[in-house]
Amino acid sequence: MKYTIFGESHGPAIGVVLEGVPAGLELDLEAMGKDLSRRSTGKDALSTARKEADEVNVLSGVFEGRTTGAPLALVIANSDQHSGDYEALRYTPRPSHGDFAGFIQSKGCLDYRGGGHFSGRLTAPLVAAGSVAKQLLAEKNVWVGAHISAVYGITDAALNDPQELRGVADKPFPVLDDAKGEEMKKAILEAKEGQDSVGGSIECAVTGLPVGLGAPDFGRNVEGIFSQYLFAVPAVKAVAFGAGVAFAYMRGTEANDPFEVVDGKVVTRTNNAGGINGGITNGMPVTFEVTMRPTPSIALPQESVDLRTGEEVEIEIKGRHDPCVVHRAVPVIEAAAALAACEVLGI
Amino acid sequence: MKYTIFGESHGPAIGVVLEGVPAGLELDLEAMGKDLSRRSTGKDALSTARKEADEVNVLSGVFEGRTTGAPLALVIANSDQHSGDYEALRYTPRPSHGDFAGFIQSKGCLDYRGGGHFSGRLTAPLVAAGSVAKQLLAEKNVWVGAHISAVYGITDAALNDPQELRGVADKPFPVLDDAKGEEMKKAILEAKEGQDSVGGSIECAVTGLPVGLGAPDFGRNVEGIFSQYLFAVPAVKAVAFGAGVAFAYMRGTEANDPFEVVDGKVVTRTNNAGGINGGITNGMPVTFEVTMRPTPSIALPQESVDLRTGEEVEIEIKGRHDPCVVHRAVPVIEAAAALAACEVLGI
Amino acid sequence: MKYTIFGESHGPAIGVVLEGVPAGLELDLEAMGKDLSRRSTGKDALSTARKEADEVNVLSGVFEGRTTGAPLALVIANSDQHSGDYEALRYTPRPSHGDFAGFIQSKGCLDYRGGGHFSGRLTAPLVAAGSVAKQLLAEKNVWVGAHISAVYGITDAALNDPQELRGVADKPFPVLDDAKGEEMKKAILEAKEGQDSVGGSIECAVTGLPVGLGAPDFGRNVEGIFSQYLFAVPAVKAVAFGAGVAFAYMRGTEANDPFEVVDGKVVTRTNNAGGINGGITNGMPVTFEVTMRPTPSIALPQESVDLRTGEEVEIEIKGRHDPCVVHRAVPVIEAAAALAACEVLGI
Amino acid sequence: MKYTIFGESHGPAIGVVLEGVPAGLELDLEAMGKDLSRRSTGKDALSTARKEADEVNVLSGVFEGRTTGAPLALVIANSDQHSGDYEALRYTPRPSHGDFAGFIQSKGCLDYRGGGHFSGRLTAPLVAAGSVAKQLLAEKNVWVGAHISAVYGITDAALNDPQELRGVADKPFPVLDDAKGEEMKKAILEAKEGQDSVGGSIECAVTGLPVGLGAPDFGRNVEGIFSQYLFAVPAVKAVAFGAGVAFAYMRGTEANDPFEVVDGKVVTRTNNAGGINGGITNGMPVTFEVTMRPTPSIALPQESVDLRTGEEVEIEIKGRHDPCVVHRAVPVIEAAAALAACEVLGI
Repeated sequence: MKYTIFGESHGPAIGVVLEGVPAGLELDLEAMGKDLSRRSTGKDALSTARKEADEVNVLSGVFEGRTTGAPLALVIANSDQHSGDYEALRYTPRPSHGDFAGFIQSKGCLDYRGGGHFSGRLTAPLVAAGSVAKQLLAEKNVWVGAHISAVYGITDAALNDPQELRGVADKPFPVLDDAKGEEMKKAILEAKEGQDSVGGSIECAVTGLPVGLGAPDFGRNVEGIFSQYLFAVPAVKAVAFGAGVAFAYMRGTEANDPFEVVDGKVVTRTNNAGGINGGITNGMPVTFEVTMRPTPSIALPQESVDLRTGEEVEIEIKGRHDPCVVHRAVPVIEAAAALAACEVLGI
Repeated sequence: MKYTIFGESHGPAIGVVLEGVPAGLELDLEAMGKDLSRRSTGKDALSTARKEADEVNVLSGVFEGRTTGAPLALVIANSDQHSGDYEALRYTPRPSHGDFAGFIQSKGCLDYRGGGHFSGRLTAPLVAAGSVAKQLLAEKNVWVGAHISAVYGITDAALNDPQELRGVADKPFPVLDDAKGEEMKKAILEAKEGQDSVGGSIECAVTGLPVGLGAPDFGRNVEGIFSQYLFAVPAVKAVAFGAGVAFAYMRGTEANDPFEVVDGKVVTRTNNAGGINGGITNGMPVTFEVTMRPTPSIALPQESVDLRTGEEVEIEIKGRHDPCVVHRAVPVIEAAAALAACEVLGI
Repeated sequence: MKYTIFGESHGPAIGVVLEGVPAGLELDLEAMGKDLSRRSTGKDALSTARKEADEVNVLSGVFEGRTTGAPLALVIANSDQHSGDYEALRYTPRPSHGDFAGFIQSKGCLDYRGGGHFSGRLTAPLVAAGSVAKQLLAEKNVWVGAHISAVYGITDAALNDPQELRGVADKPFPVLDDAKGEEMKKAILEAKEGQDSVGGSIECAVTGLPVGLGAPDFGRNVEGIFSQYLFAVPAVKAVAFGAGVAFAYMRGTEANDPFEVVDGKVVTRTNNAGGINGGITNGMPVTFEVTMRPTPSIALPQESVDLRTGEEVEIEIKGRHDPCVVHRAVPVIEAAAALAACEVLGI
Repeated sequence: MKYTIFGESHGPAIGVVLEGVPAGLELDLEAMGKDLSRRSTGKDALSTARKEADEVNVLSGVFEGRTTGAPLALVIANSDQHSGDYEALRYTPRPSHGDFAGFIQSKGCLDYRGGGHFSGRLTAPLVAAGSVAKQLLAEKNVWVGAHISAVYGITDAALNDPQELRGVADKPFPVLDDAKGEEMKKAILEAKEGQDSVGGSIECAVTGLPVGLGAPDFGRNVEGIFSQYLFAVPAVKAVAFGAGVAFAYMRGTEANDPFEVVDGKVVTRTNNAGGINGGITNGMPVTFEVTMRPTPSIALPQESVDLRTGEEVEIEIKGRHDPCVVHRAVPVIEAAAALAACEVLGI
């Protein structure tokens, strides 16, 4: 299964084409809508005020409610764009956005409105594709869950068992510990008041993958496969499996996962490896954490350069922005993980 | 350029085939040997006692000293194997190695001796391939450097400018601050004495990549491309670009990289983005840090399971092992980064 | 540049997503429309009566008339479907169509109406994608032309110089020798009257490709690249380069292309190799011929099997069909060739 | 499973690396040797006098006789090279060889001795890889057979049933009708006497592929997959499935394959489609014919150009050459078909 996302923030529509979808899946568009609604905007003060209906239009690949095996094209119309907000920024790239790199790459032919194809808006079709992936995984008892693990340094409770994530998806602010969640929200609102933004991280677990998928080799190892999907999510700057960056502080005795037999099955007592040894699944949940940078769009004045004249200029970003994307990104990371899990499973 | 690594720790030979190498490169085998010697073993008490000559045999793709454009096959003979050390572990997988996952995947047909194809030994051909990549990059003024950024929580000096890495490659223990290096070595030797091992991290920079390479999309974004090469290195469990995991603690005002003009060129004052915005190079050095887990091979007794009987057993790993692989992995990470940079450049 | 075609004959829309389109191309939608009109239907008695407007809707990847480098999504709405014509054939596969293989593959979830995703209708987005490719090639002085080389054994005049194809594209029936064309048309109409269909072949030339593209190796040789695009066109059953199948009747002295120098340039006197030696372009026009099977949809009664009962049955295909697809396929083959040429050029 | 072939005609060794070989196959090196011997040289007057031992050295991927799932590296040492024969041709490309295109592509860094990487010698590792593929296919009851269908216009008996190919592989000159074979041999020897060469064709069948593999889409259709493997064989210039080029002379009533039920199984009475409808296997044998050009190496004087001076020159090719490669290529085409069948099956 391969996916191709297309569209721009202020174009007529965005969408995704999924190739290689197995035939016979009774596509649950309601479940897809639910995931899209989890990433949607305008619900509260924590997110941008842009309103998006995000209704998915199935152009192909489904017949009488079931996938046919032919490419599945899902299209979402754009609406509520305020393109005028971006006119002034056409030649003065916003710091830490794709504007500058994209301007040079495209020889100036970039759609600069709302970030164009770089926009977080493009995560909507990713969530739609991920919903298809989740439905395919469910047939194999593979399940994906995630929670906000940190916002601006405030950390959620530790995840001891991926099953704890079962109830998280339905929360408006998906954390394990709601008290921590309130602290995070406060940090987001403070950043917003300061015309600033904050970063954070998301922890994700994939359960049910059998032992023995993947390979140690380039292009086939499970960490490499997952990371390729995860880094395709805007704002993701780090991906860490299992104990992740803490391995740099550990000894082998702490880091190694001893084997044991539970219910006649060989498992590991701990899961520091995040379910992957030698690039191959070991039957434990695949766990990882992604770090998401603070939204680069902030209302405070910033230093830029006029690309026509080469002069340094100060810019102010107007428009409606998220002071934090982490909470909206939880279903996006799940989607990327679900697509990666499909590749690992050979779906 | 694509690479395929083959071989096992105790097989007759290991090697790599590089496809798509541009013709006309005067291949510098001495430079390749130097990088191989940087990752080689048996030099001091910090590494395994296994001795490896690591002489590279060029089977194809080079004529009269220059690459021809045909596939380049590099083979390194194995030697000094003590296969007997592994006999006892055939059916009792070593914790946190690929043994168990590999055993199940291969239906028991695994070459269990010395980790087989999972062995760190396979990083020798990776370094050889990386040397070819570095030589191709040099023609385009792209340069790759790295240093140990941490061992067992002891951190090297901060890297302010990638140029500081120029002298590091020649050091037997590649750190910026040698005093910190001594502390790290002490930690490694202490772990060794305790029949244990330690993890750490490596920071790497790629300079000279022009603005505008890559794309935000799946399979084409620069972070995704680099991470796929980096996670193919055994023991790498996390990859973080630019400010990396620290983004989770930052505000947009801290994280954003303001633009300025230096010598008529648009650059960013800081490089928190690690040279990549929206999945595309922005002309600043591409910087990232990888976390490497502690060597899973430790001499202390560990809990395993006999895969024939399903009984829990205690095992002791004999053989010669590295109490830490971080210092030997510096040229390996450089190699992976060089291969990734070639892909980004379309080489 | 990669393309993904989606859609079904009787679905709401068909389309294509092109990834990796270079930025800055002033997209000529009129030229695209002209190619689409060349493959369009309902113009005369030689083709199906189904009317298709084939207006292309650009959903993404173009801004202010120029490509941006982001994925280019082109969508064409379907219309004038007569789905009722197919109801009776749902479980009785039409001989030599994809119905049976597709039914089994999709576990019965196939969109059986009008051939679904197997339909020749899907060549419309291919022509649209090919038009983009042709426009990119034009910037590099690469040009693609084709003519009907045979219909039901009636052969067009021999092509001596690819430049002779310049005027052919504008002809309603694209042959070199119009008298031969009249004979072919007569054969098509006779087949139609007999409720039958006829096959034929198309010869195509790509001029302007420089010397030295491709490789002898799997996945990189020029014949292999072209053939993969060409066999993705429905009804193509054979692909032959240069002298093609006639090589089986030749001696080396006849087949070899002697070198000579013309205007200071090394060329070959003949071009039996079809512009490719050792899988690499040699600077001569790349020439090839594809064979297209007779349309499998014929009105005469045919033998089939009821897939529900396993009983042999006789079926009659209703609906509107082409007695021959060769003349409509000329721009389709050009499109496939143009996309292949882009891959060969690294576009 | 992916394969990468490396080596040059006059280098130290040639070989292949196979990635993704399923674990657990008891590798039959004797069967591999038998196929290599079928393509080997120096046996009679029909082939070049170069002697090749072609002993396969397994460097990796096999343990205790079984594949482990790790990359399988097979290396064959070169011997009996007469490099001196080629010195005079270094700057005067042989007509219809890869010399000229390769010289330009490699900026003159080509290994010109014996065709270098373009040499038919490289089909030895392809046969070795194909033998692995055949052994994997045998576990799924898929079988590949082939025969010489024509040499210099002399055609073998028609193949009515792929089972007739069972005995052909063991024949020194693999045809169905030995009388026709004698005529072909005579044509080859006459060409040889005339210092010339002849072309021909090979027909191949793959039996046992189940219904429903492949897709109509680019990169996934069965004809496209097979053709990519087949065109990677030197000298192949045309690939035609089922009735092939004869479709251009047919009506739908002749070309269509009527369905019938035999032993409770839906099959087609004829197999003009060559086992593929809509790019998907239909359960019938996949059949195709490849055309192979006459060997470009002929002893008669030929016209070339001195690439240093740009002057037209006459050259004479010395060395030992095949007056025809068709009979030696039969196991090569089988190998390519077997590798293609593995891809179609998802092996």
